[in-house]
Amino acid sequence: MASFTFAVRATDGDARLGELRTPHGIVQTPAFMPVGTQGAVKAMRQSELEQAGAEIILANTYHLMLRPGDALVARRGGLHRFIGWPRPILTDSGGFQVYSLAQRRVITEEGADFQSHLDGTRCLLTPERAADIQARLGSDIAMVLDECLALPATRDEAAIAMARSVRWAERGRRRLLALRAGEVSDVPVSNPGQAQFGIVQGGVFPDLRLESAEATIAIGFEGYAIGGLSVGEPTEQMYAVAGDTARRLPAARPRYLMGVGTPEDLVECVARGLDMFDCVLPTRNARNGQLFTSEGRLNIKNAKYAEDDGPLDPACGCYTCRHHSRAYLRHLYLAGEMTAGVLNTLHNLSFYLDTMRRIRDAIAFRTFAKFRQEMLRSTLSAGAP
Amino acid sequence: MASFTFAVRATDGDARLGELRTPHGIVQTPAFMPVGTQGAVKAMRQSELEQAGAEIILANTYHLMLRPGDALVARRGGLHRFIGWPRPILTDSGGFQVYSLAQRRVITEEGADFQSHLDGTRCLLTPERAADIQARLGSDIAMVLDECLALPATRDEAAIAMARSVRWAERGRRRLLALRAGEVSDVPVSNPGQAQFGIVQGGVFPDLRLESAEATIAIGFEGYAIGGLSVGEPTEQMYAVAGDTARRLPAARPRYLMGVGTPEDLVECVARGLDMFDCVLPTRNARNGQLFTSEGRLNIKNAKYAEDDGPLDPACGCYTCRHHSRAYLRHLYLAGEMTAGVLNTLHNLSFYLDTMRRIRDAIAFRTFAKFRQEMLRSTLSAGAP
Repeated sequence: MASFTFAVRATDGDARLGELRTPHGIVQTPAFMPVGTQGAVKAMRQSELEQAGAEIILANTYHLMLRPGDALVARRGGLHRFIGWPRPILTDSGGFQVYSLAQRRVITEEGADFQSHLDGTRCLLTPERAADIQARLGSDIAMVLDECLALPATRDEAAIAMARSVRWAERGRRRLLALRAGEVSDVPVSNPGQAQFGIVQGGVFPDLRLESAEATIAIGFEGYAIGGLSVGEPTEQMYAVAGDTARRLPAARPRYLMGVGTPEDLVECVARGLDMFDCVLPTRNARNGQLFTSEGRLNIKNAKYAEDDGPLDPACGCYTCRHHSRAYLRHLYLAGEMTAGVLNTLHNLSFYLDTMRRIRDAIAFRTFAKFRQEMLRSTLSAGAP
Repeated sequence: MASFTFAVRATDGDARLGELRTPHGIVQTPAFMPVGTQGAVKAMRQSELEQAGAEIILANTYHLMLRPGDALVARRGGLHRFIGWPRPILTDSGGFQVYSLAQRRVITEEGADFQSHLDGTRCLLTPERAADIQARLGSDIAMVLDECLALPATRDEAAIAMARSVRWAERGRRRLLALRAGEVSDVPVSNPGQAQFGIVQGGVFPDLRLESAEATIAIGFEGYAIGGLSVGEPTEQMYAVAGDTARRLPAARPRYLMGVGTPEDLVECVARGLDMFDCVLPTRNARNGQLFTSEGRLNIKNAKYAEDDGPLDPACGCYTCRHHSRAYLRHLYLAGEMTAGVLNTLHNLSFYLDTMRRIRDAIAFRTFAKFRQEMLRSTLSAGAP
């Protein structure tokens, strides 16, 4: 795949500074991908995302296949053109939403049979169909369909789901290669340079993770993701599994930790060799009035901000912090103004993307250990400012 | 008031091209004022309003007195500083919201006694208190408290409300002059250059309108508004009353038609000598998927836009029209994305503000009659494009 390459440009301990080249541009790693579930990062305009420094966004296959439909998106020239976002896009496979949103889900060897949460329509998502849908969407990075484990799960349940995910990964990869080779005549390929990542599963069981990693690597993908973490297990265990698994993945390929996490999680997982992250936390929390700052988290609803003329975060250079006070943001939030969602999201995403920039700088200057220490000290300090 | 001046720079028929100078900058008239009810134009950032060409916004005294409270705003240095909007602001008097939103309203000669729609708190809004609140807010243009007529109304009811509004206007003016003179020690005056407009009432009865205009002019204000129109009367009657009343107002003062209207209304009322307008139509309709375009209105929900790759309005240069298709905007709207509200509001406000710019250009070039004709022909043509 000449149009998709990854290179590690520097390391500092296990932390890696890298560059992902895709058909829609370059992504500096470690990278955070804002979540644009339905083809829009909630409350944001695309130009605001670019200004905040987003180099890649994530979109959800499950949501887009149901509405407006992947065939419609393909007729619009693919997802980039449809949503007016010229930079790289990663699409997930839909597996997690089938698990978390869909109704009357039945998983068989064939795939996931479920009812749409929108209108109850019966759908079948197979590894092949997940690849087809993402080919129509034309994302730069597609994910294989995996089986998400219903929690809590025994080791046996985790082993069965992991083994099935490996078999699905083989089928998904075979389908992608057929699509690339032009052998699937009824599926338009919106982005011929699309890469595909495999997903390592196995719950919190080290031997299952190892087995999954080896089998997934054996299939061969442009990159590797770690799925099924940050789903309720203790943070230290999440870090340990992410780190152990990352070490088993090829050094020359990007490593993507799915659905993670807090700013501290990002730093800790970069320290363990992870390159890519996505999470709804900055956007969802913003809409709920929860803001991330260099001095810790704050809840803008708090009465103590009613007459606070200072910015959300004195160290932040985002539009919100440059223009507005905590007092005004509290007023907008309590008044139920949509503008609260806009301004808060802009800040939280800026904070996340700035954090990633500072992480990359620290790796480049080989000061990442110091950065990590200071970051954790400040964010773990006594709560909100 | 040296800090508030108005000059008519050109006329074309009854249409006037003017310039309003306020303590927070210049407003070219005819002007449309986007409505920022609670200190924010819904879904907009202040920088977006500026970019769209808004030179003045309207904020609601009723909403702000209840939340966050005018005293808090005064402690923040006034409304401009609190909301981060450096340009002119007009505040209404609260009279209309007492009529339309408040509960258990009792109008006496003293003022309007009501319960807050937020928490049922008992409030008394008098002409003096309306002036005090607006002094604390520090808007550039304050409005006197008037009595809004419950509709349908007989001529007698309209006459009684009009006469009371005149008495209230006298009291409101006296209070403003006392505030200006520093005679009200417990009310901080956030904007010493604040102007005050009187409001002509009288329903759809020409003799009452005339009587109200004469009495209000006799009191003497920096500008004059026409209230109580666009409340259900036939459009032609609204135009006639607005035009007749405008002719009775001093040529050297700005004339503000409150709560009006559609793009066609703006053109028709500029043609009748009106200078300033405000309306929730562009912002509220945007959030409901109703878009104004140079080819008429369109409802973005309509199935015919599902695969329409064109912009909302090919003649529009706003961010939304430059970046996104009707197909994407329809998807965002149906998916319930906040970004739909943002992009649609940006377009509708841009369309309104562009229309005002074109109106001003046409008056300057003395081509307003032609502009008016073409505008009405295109917007009245068979519905949406």
